[in-house]
Amino acid sequence: MREKTWLTVLFVVFMWFAFSYGQEMQAISLPKPQTSGGKPLMETLSLRKSAREFSSEELPLQTLSNLLWAAFGINRPESGKRTAPSAVNWQEIDIYVATSSGVYLYDAKTNQLKPVVSGDQRSAFGRQSFVRTAPVVLAYVADFSRMGKASPGDKEFYSAVDTGFISQNVYLFCASAGLNTVVLGIVDRNTLATTLGLKPEQKIILTQPVGYPPKR
Amino acid sequence: MREKTWLTVLFVVFMWFAFSYGQEMQAISLPKPQTSGGKPLMETLSLRKSAREFSSEELPLQTLSNLLWAAFGINRPESGKRTAPSAVNWQEIDIYVATSSGVYLYDAKTNQLKPVVSGDQRSAFGRQSFVRTAPVVLAYVADFSRMGKASPGDKEFYSAVDTGFISQNVYLFCASAGLNTVVLGIVDRNTLATTLGLKPEQKIILTQPVGYPPKR
Repeated sequence: MREKTWLTVLFVVFMWFAFSYGQEMQAISLPKPQTSGGKPLMETLSLRKSAREFSSEELPLQTLSNLLWAAFGINRPESGKRTAPSAVNWQEIDIYVATSSGVYLYDAKTNQLKPVVSGDQRSAFGRQSFVRTAPVVLAYVADFSRMGKASPGDKEFYSAVDTGFISQNVYLFCASAGLNTVVLGIVDRNTLATTLGLKPEQKIILTQPVGYPPKR
Repeated sequence: MREKTWLTVLFVVFMWFAFSYGQEMQAISLPKPQTSGGKPLMETLSLRKSAREFSSEELPLQTLSNLLWAAFGINRPESGKRTAPSAVNWQEIDIYVATSSGVYLYDAKTNQLKPVVSGDQRSAFGRQSFVRTAPVVLAYVADFSRMGKASPGDKEFYSAVDTGFISQNVYLFCASAGLNTVVLGIVDRNTLATTLGLKPEQKIILTQPVGYPPKR
C-alpha cells in the first residue's frame, strides 16, 4: 500500500515534469518579420511616448516578430549587422522575452524564441503591477564576455548606451504600431538574474513591457 | 608716429573682436521642424547603419532643424516632453552642434542654436579625420545637476542609456533622409570639455558626426 502510494507520487511528479517540459520548452519559430511599412518616421517620432497602462490582449506572433526585428534584428544579412549599433559591433545585448507562458531568448539569426524558463515570470521583470498585465515584457541583458578586453567601466558604459539604441527602436515600433510601452530601470536584478539563470558575466540593463493600450 | 601705429593696432584689434563677435556669436533661429513625412519606419530600420565617410556639403538649415527635433525635440508641447525618453523625465542630455563656423547648443524650447564658441572646433569632437569633414558633429553632454538625488553610479548609467535613445533617433533620421552618421565613443573628453567650457557636473557622453555620403 505504501509502496503503491509512493509509485503514484513518483508517477505524478514524472508526468508533471514531462508535461511541463513538453508543453513549455520548445523553441518558437517566428514568422518572417515584415521589414517594410509602418508610419512615416517623423510621424512616428511625433507619437513617441512612455505609457504605463496595458491591455492583457496577446500580441499576434507576426507583431512580436516585427517588434523584435525592429528592436535588434539583422537588417544586413550579408554581414549579420543589426537595426541598432553596438560598440565595436560586439552585439553584446540579448533580448529576453517574457509572456504569460514563459521566458524566451530572441535569436535574431534563426528568428526564433529559444526557451529559457517556463511559467509566468513577468512579475520578476519589474515592480509595478502593469508589468504583470502587459502580454510581453522584454529584458535587455548584456553579456560582458562578448566585450573583449574592454575595462569594467567601459563594459558598464557601452552596454548601457547600446541598450538605449535598442530600446528606442522598441519605442518607435510601438508608436508606429499603436502599442504602449515604457522602459523600466528599477528592477530587482538579483531576482530576475536568478529567474533567468544568468551567468555572472551577464548583466540585466533594463526591462520594457509592451502591449496594446487598455480598452476604454 | 609711434602713437599712430599703436592706435592703428588697437583699432584693428578692436575691429577684429567686434567683427568676430558680431559674426559668430549670434543665436540661430531654426526653421520650424517638419514633423511629418520621412520613410516608413520599418524601411528606415532596414536602412539603419553606421557610415564613416562624409561629403563636406553643408546641411540645409531645415534639415538641421528636422535632425535636432528628431533627436530630442519637443513632441508634446503641452508637457514639454521629447522624442526620446529620459529617466525620471530629467531631460539631462544637451546636444552641442559643431559646424565649420562654431559650436552651438540646441535649445529645443525656442528651436534655436545658442552660441557656445566660435571657429571650427570639429577636430575636438573625435580623433578620426572624417570628424573634420562632416558638416555637423553632435556632442551629447549630460548635466548631472539635473539628475536630482540619484547616486553617482545611477547618473553614469542613466545618462548613458538616455544618450542611446537620442543617438538612435539620429541614426534613424539619417537613414530616412539619406545622410551618413556614426556614433563615436572614443573622444578626448578633457579637451572637448575645455573647448565647450563645460561645468564640472557636465559629462560628455558621445559624439556623432552627420553629413551627406561622399560624392562618387
